[in-house]
Amino acid sequence: MTLRPVEDHLAAILATVSPTPTVDLALRDALGATLAEPVRSAVDLPGFTNSAMDGYAVRAADCAGASTSSPVRLPVVGDIQAGDTSPRTLEPGACWRIMTGAPMPEGADAVVPVEDSDGGTETVALTAAPDLHRHVRFRGEDVAAGAQVLAAGAVLTPGRLALVAAANVATVRANTPPRVAIISTGDELREPGSELAHGQIVDSNSLMLEALVRASGVEPVRLPRSRDDVDSLTRALTEAAAAADLVLTTGGVSMGAYDTVKEVLSRSGTVEFAKVAMRPGMPQGHGVIGPRATPIITLPGNPLSAMVSFHVFVLPAIAALQGRPVDAANWRAPAVPGRAAVAWPSVPDKVEFTRVTLRRGIATPSGGQGSHMVGALADANAIAIIPADVTQVQEGDVVQCLRLVGTIPANNAAGEVSML
Amino acid sequence: MTLRPVEDHLAAILATVSPTPTVDLALRDALGATLAEPVRSAVDLPGFTNSAMDGYAVRAADCAGASTSSPVRLPVVGDIQAGDTSPRTLEPGACWRIMTGAPMPEGADAVVPVEDSDGGTETVALTAAPDLHRHVRFRGEDVAAGAQVLAAGAVLTPGRLALVAAANVATVRANTPPRVAIISTGDELREPGSELAHGQIVDSNSLMLEALVRASGVEPVRLPRSRDDVDSLTRALTEAAAAADLVLTTGGVSMGAYDTVKEVLSRSGTVEFAKVAMRPGMPQGHGVIGPRATPIITLPGNPLSAMVSFHVFVLPAIAALQGRPVDAANWRAPAVPGRAAVAWPSVPDKVEFTRVTLRRGIATPSGGQGSHMVGALADANAIAIIPADVTQVQEGDVVQCLRLVGTIPANNAAGEVSML
Repeated sequence: MTLRPVEDHLAAILATVSPTPTVDLALRDALGATLAEPVRSAVDLPGFTNSAMDGYAVRAADCAGASTSSPVRLPVVGDIQAGDTSPRTLEPGACWRIMTGAPMPEGADAVVPVEDSDGGTETVALTAAPDLHRHVRFRGEDVAAGAQVLAAGAVLTPGRLALVAAANVATVRANTPPRVAIISTGDELREPGSELAHGQIVDSNSLMLEALVRASGVEPVRLPRSRDDVDSLTRALTEAAAAADLVLTTGGVSMGAYDTVKEVLSRSGTVEFAKVAMRPGMPQGHGVIGPRATPIITLPGNPLSAMVSFHVFVLPAIAALQGRPVDAANWRAPAVPGRAAVAWPSVPDKVEFTRVTLRRGIATPSGGQGSHMVGALADANAIAIIPADVTQVQEGDVVQCLRLVGTIPANNAAGEVSML
Repeated sequence: MTLRPVEDHLAAILATVSPTPTVDLALRDALGATLAEPVRSAVDLPGFTNSAMDGYAVRAADCAGASTSSPVRLPVVGDIQAGDTSPRTLEPGACWRIMTGAPMPEGADAVVPVEDSDGGTETVALTAAPDLHRHVRFRGEDVAAGAQVLAAGAVLTPGRLALVAAANVATVRANTPPRVAIISTGDELREPGSELAHGQIVDSNSLMLEALVRASGVEPVRLPRSRDDVDSLTRALTEAAAAADLVLTTGGVSMGAYDTVKEVLSRSGTVEFAKVAMRPGMPQGHGVIGPRATPIITLPGNPLSAMVSFHVFVLPAIAALQGRPVDAANWRAPAVPGRAAVAWPSVPDKVEFTRVTLRRGIATPSGGQGSHMVGALADANAIAIIPADVTQVQEGDVVQCLRLVGTIPANNAAGEVSML
């Protein structure tokens, strides 16, 4: 049987995903959101003409000819500090002491820096003649009211949120934060901390997926674990399709659970199962369920396969829900290069995903590659993508690596970050 | 006056910071937490001896001499699927059909893969003689109950959470998630969307800092904006010191506000103000306040200075609160290299921080470097660190860049990530 290429399967998934409806978000709730519409400034920036220096606000004409040898003396009307909101006026023949950022008084047209003065507070001796408009920042010189400050599609970073706020815009139009539901099935699965009877195991997969969803910036929808029978799973799927914008199933490890997922979803007629040319993660399923045609992705049960599938298929689907541009053909684009620390073999005719630790540009395979050893996932911070036509990675080869979400603490100051 | 080196100022800040008290966190609340104690497995992993292959669970002795030319025929007692929790026994002279991951029946000591059989379900012809223990995964062969699976200091990534869950451990001992309070002062400051009178500006700084704190994985504590007088600010500081593990002030842009911050904090006797050998961000203050000696960092008022100071001083302080190892002398460690797209000058005798966009290993200065242009922060995704002894960056030079937190969507599939 012919295996489906990764990019074709991702394209099929993305065809089922539309951006979530747009909504007005207050700026405090908008970190990481994608703009559905451009943001235009509600005000001029700066909002008022102000001084670029600490010094004296003057009429330039009053200072003509000022020099060290022949200073111009002017009376100082008073101080204008940054944050001063009183309207001030400068009459000819006088000056105001002014701080950086403080509003220029009406009538002033230049600033003499304090360095070009004797620093006087009652009267001041100015030792340089300013050009007209020297050291003045004009209202609107950065941004005019009505001008676009951010384009649709921009992701709202902290710096961009500051810009939107400075533009005096209180809400942005963005895609609704997506909700991702995780359905876990398997009668043998138990919560962590349970007494385990013979053959029972802890459900670590749904916890991992929930953490991956959260680490990718999206709130997971928690649903009770479904039993392995058709009725329970049908109910769980109906609930998930109504509550979420994307549904993930993880089959546990049991054949029964996987069979039930496959049986119920095959019956729907809107979900297809495919073998994808990748290892791990070959058995994939995807489609839509419920009256709103909610996209669903069925993830393989073993932890490494689920981890790989999440990064290759689910992350792009979440990005698409958020209204971000996603190109299935370019699915490797978020990868970063790493140099292989050692040689390792790769399966022919499939894309091999090798879990690695990526540190300072060096990719080292992490733990055994056996799919049952959840422990080996603990140290990996990336998965190396070995193309289908490569059967052997040589030491020193540059390999493309997808960083695992949630493995890089943003505030790590000790250099544990993946570096290149 | 001698300026204080960046590493000395950071060391002085870190000397005021202790890890937060430890607490038991449920795994669902522990993403990104740092382990205060090691995690030991509560169970053997795997938890029961199971099959590594789809095939037949046998007694190896029963299959002696089996080959293609002389198969051994055994009756098949039944099927054991993954997730089967019934106790099963294998009597001599028979076998069970068994799936990968399914519990081995009592008495069986090897698995013959289905490929070495005729696939029978009533009786099976086995065409290979297995070695003892062949294709059997033994209980505890990955991890023995009681063995350490994660060391203290480990940051809980999704993969590590899965490991802890699989080890049947329901809670972890970790540092309490730190609370970071942001105090903004300045009588001229207004909320986004307000009518602005002459000289009033929108408070974009505290929103930016709140987003930076959140993007660094920590919940900010929101406090009402303080007025510019001593009483209001004293009250706000008292409240912040009680409510948070770290207090940040941002002075707005007004001299009055900054003076008030300085006056109140200088009076406390536990906060020092220093000029640090960096640009922007030279005027820094830090110390402790309140009965619990809560650390405080006073950030400069202009947005770029605040952004730089956050990454250089606040992020390491947050990491230290979380119990992560932080070395002030190594403050550049989280930086990644980028190649300068163009030449640019750098101030002598201070570390210069140049905002840049870092894409595919190329660092391009972003917008004007004037500190008042909040717009130019919008495109930057990193700040290049130009050492004090460098006065000119040449095109093609490798510069070390601190990535700005919150600028890399984890689920970006279109390659907007900073690449090297």
